[in-house]
Amino acid sequence: MKFLKALFLLENDFEDLEFFYPYYRLKEEGIEVVVASSDRETKIGKHGYTITPDLIYSEVIPEEYAALVIPGGKSPERVRVNEEAVEIVRKFADKVIAAICHGPQLLISAGLVEGRKLTSWIGIRDDVKAAGGIYEDREVVIDGKIITSRMPDDLPAFCREILKKLGIRK
Amino acid sequence: MKFLKALFLLENDFEDLEFFYPYYRLKEEGIEVVVASSDRETKIGKHGYTITPDLIYSEVIPEEYAALVIPGGKSPERVRVNEEAVEIVRKFADKVIAAICHGPQLLISAGLVEGRKLTSWIGIRDDVKAAGGIYEDREVVIDGKIITSRMPDDLPAFCREILKKLGIRK
Repeated sequence: MKFLKALFLLENDFEDLEFFYPYYRLKEEGIEVVVASSDRETKIGKHGYTITPDLIYSEVIPEEYAALVIPGGKSPERVRVNEEAVEIVRKFADKVIAAICHGPQLLISAGLVEGRKLTSWIGIRDDVKAAGGIYEDREVVIDGKIITSRMPDDLPAFCREILKKLGIRK
Repeated sequence: MKFLKALFLLENDFEDLEFFYPYYRLKEEGIEVVVASSDRETKIGKHGYTITPDLIYSEVIPEEYAALVIPGGKSPERVRVNEEAVEIVRKFADKVIAAICHGPQLLISAGLVEGRKLTSWIGIRDDVKAAGGIYEDREVVIDGKIITSRMPDDLPAFCREILKKLGIRK
């Protein structure tokens, strides 16, 4: 198996399943999963699950990673106000980026939405459109290497497409 | 792909990730996932996630399923006091049974532990031993078609082995 690394950008109030399902799923495939945040404090999800970041944003070397995963909840709003984090997202523009629920907020901040097909949590649908995105209400939308989904129930389709895009599953 | 069904036995206070990770994971493979419980009320996990059962125990036809999955938390203690549910577990004795965390409590009640290698949440380790089980402290233990794990962080290994046993992954 080829050695791959995936990066998660995470702050407090992340949607627990939207973090842990992809995190465990990529681990199941032998992919190294790395969590970056604004500081080293343990982060807590909306439902109380916790994870301690491996890195702070300034330590991330985007070139090391094959994919970026952006879980939803209130985390993306906290990530997007950090310019270092937004800069990381921009550096993944030619790699696999997977954003679910409120995750596309970070794609808007990074200027990656205009003219692209994507989906998101319905509550930010109008922001996606206002940023020039072509919104589709489907469990998973793929545009080039950008994969987006709407909510936890979309996780099976979301991860299936991430792993296809990484060449790990058919 | 062959058509497979998997059954989950679930009551209130289930460990949310231990239910949802396998539930979504099997869905990702196109397996039909069915949740059975003592009544049709929506069940709530320890962390607040919810799921509405598809069936009550008396409606389960074990012959329809390729695998039984028993998530942990306080759910297994509630399942095991229901004789119909314990009888379902016994009927899976020759099929794939996957139990995580407190899930093996149900295997004890069904009389499936004696002389078998298995693991569980450390807090019920002595019950597994008292029931004649050979306890191993590893992320996943396989004995015939019985697959057991200890806790949420074991989920990648747990599901990898379930899918291997079902012939879906290498």
